[in-house]
Amino acid sequence: MPRFKLTLEYDGAPFSGWQRQANAVSVQEAVEAALLALTGEDVHVQAAGRTDAGVHASGQTAHVDLARDWRCDVLRDALNAWLRPQPVAALAAERVAPDFNARFSAVRRHYLYRIVNRRAPLTFERGRAWLVRRRLDARAMHDAAQRLVGFHDFSTFRDSECQANSPLRTLERFDVSREDDVIACRVSARSFLHSQVRSMVGSLEHVGSGRWRAADLVDALEARDRRRCGQVAPPDGLFLTQVDY
Amino acid sequence: MPRFKLTLEYDGAPFSGWQRQANAVSVQEAVEAALLALTGEDVHVQAAGRTDAGVHASGQTAHVDLARDWRCDVLRDALNAWLRPQPVAALAAERVAPDFNARFSAVRRHYLYRIVNRRAPLTFERGRAWLVRRRLDARAMHDAAQRLVGFHDFSTFRDSECQANSPLRTLERFDVSREDDVIACRVSARSFLHSQVRSMVGSLEHVGSGRWRAADLVDALEARDRRRCGQVAPPDGLFLTQVDY
Repeated sequence: MPRFKLTLEYDGAPFSGWQRQANAVSVQEAVEAALLALTGEDVHVQAAGRTDAGVHASGQTAHVDLARDWRCDVLRDALNAWLRPQPVAALAAERVAPDFNARFSAVRRHYLYRIVNRRAPLTFERGRAWLVRRRLDARAMHDAAQRLVGFHDFSTFRDSECQANSPLRTLERFDVSREDDVIACRVSARSFLHSQVRSMVGSLEHVGSGRWRAADLVDALEARDRRRCGQVAPPDGLFLTQVDY
Repeated sequence: MPRFKLTLEYDGAPFSGWQRQANAVSVQEAVEAALLALTGEDVHVQAAGRTDAGVHASGQTAHVDLARDWRCDVLRDALNAWLRPQPVAALAAERVAPDFNARFSAVRRHYLYRIVNRRAPLTFERGRAWLVRRRLDARAMHDAAQRLVGFHDFSTFRDSECQANSPLRTLERFDVSREDDVIACRVSARSFLHSQVRSMVGSLEHVGSGRWRAADLVDALEARDRRRCGQVAPPDGLFLTQVDY
């Protein structure tokens, strides 16, 4: 059966997350239902990253095996027609080798976390950013974030329900920059632990507001203790932007 | 009575436009109702630009006279509290001179029109951009747009219900640029006719798709005939971003 790689974009707000589960509507279920309607096949779609409830994607990737050798642009457009009106779209479909695996072939995942740093409530950005009212020092956040880059035990920044075998990960990039009221946190690694980005960004907010110094962030990391995580940032601001293979 | 200048942001989707009208919810009404709840005063709020139904603002300005000499940050925060949960927010409140008029003192208005140019439907950008599926040449759009810059009779690009005395306007800037799938049209002038930005962008889309050449756009302008307008772009992509004084 031909294997296809799908590049997906979605608004995470109405979904329980990527992964299919009982009594909740997941992105995976939406995509599999659209493929069933289109092809008549009851397929399993495997994604690169299992985004949590409310987390968005501008470049999630997934793979699926289909009986027919679809023309890629036709598959993309037909899938989009069946996905409507849900806020999930296939940006691209590509034919890939049978050994391509969206999850296990991935060599790097990129996330963007958006903070809007102002007093006024969000309007057209509601649900697409974390509103932080106290003034944040983005430069201090960037400097402190560099202490997390590299190979570490990230137990502090890992959800208690994380199923990964090891808390060891290599964080390749953690850049924080401000443009007007928007603070963008760009994070890259081969793979992440459950809630790792939101746990790191939440803790870094303490540095930005002056509640923590960079040394406190390092202490929290080195404690390897979930109870030392500053806070978990809300899902609204998180976007899975790209997966490299 | 002290006069205040308000800088407002809003999601235009749920509103019938800025201007108060019967049997529809306007942004003006939302702001005046919040001020009534806050101050007990039945005030009139005058805006720089009367945005149409569905049009957004990231930097609308307005002025209002209040009985009390509010501290500006207190006024902003209290107004925002009363505006909730509507997608309207005061970004700033400033004390201005009694002869300041948000509409008549304005010397320049800036709009951004966002086009997403791709096959896939919109997800988290739904309602905040115009989705154009056929491939657009942003360079050709930019070049043609320069033919509209300057002092012209814009009758072709003016809504039939426009109440302005004259169709003569000086367009100061019309820049079109692409970044990945997003085409940004940035337009500035002292003032605009009703639906002028959307009429110009809609016609320019014909140039981008190759249906019109730049000369066809110039012919349409010179015809000074509403029936020669290519099309009116939807409100979703339009943002009033800034007003200069």
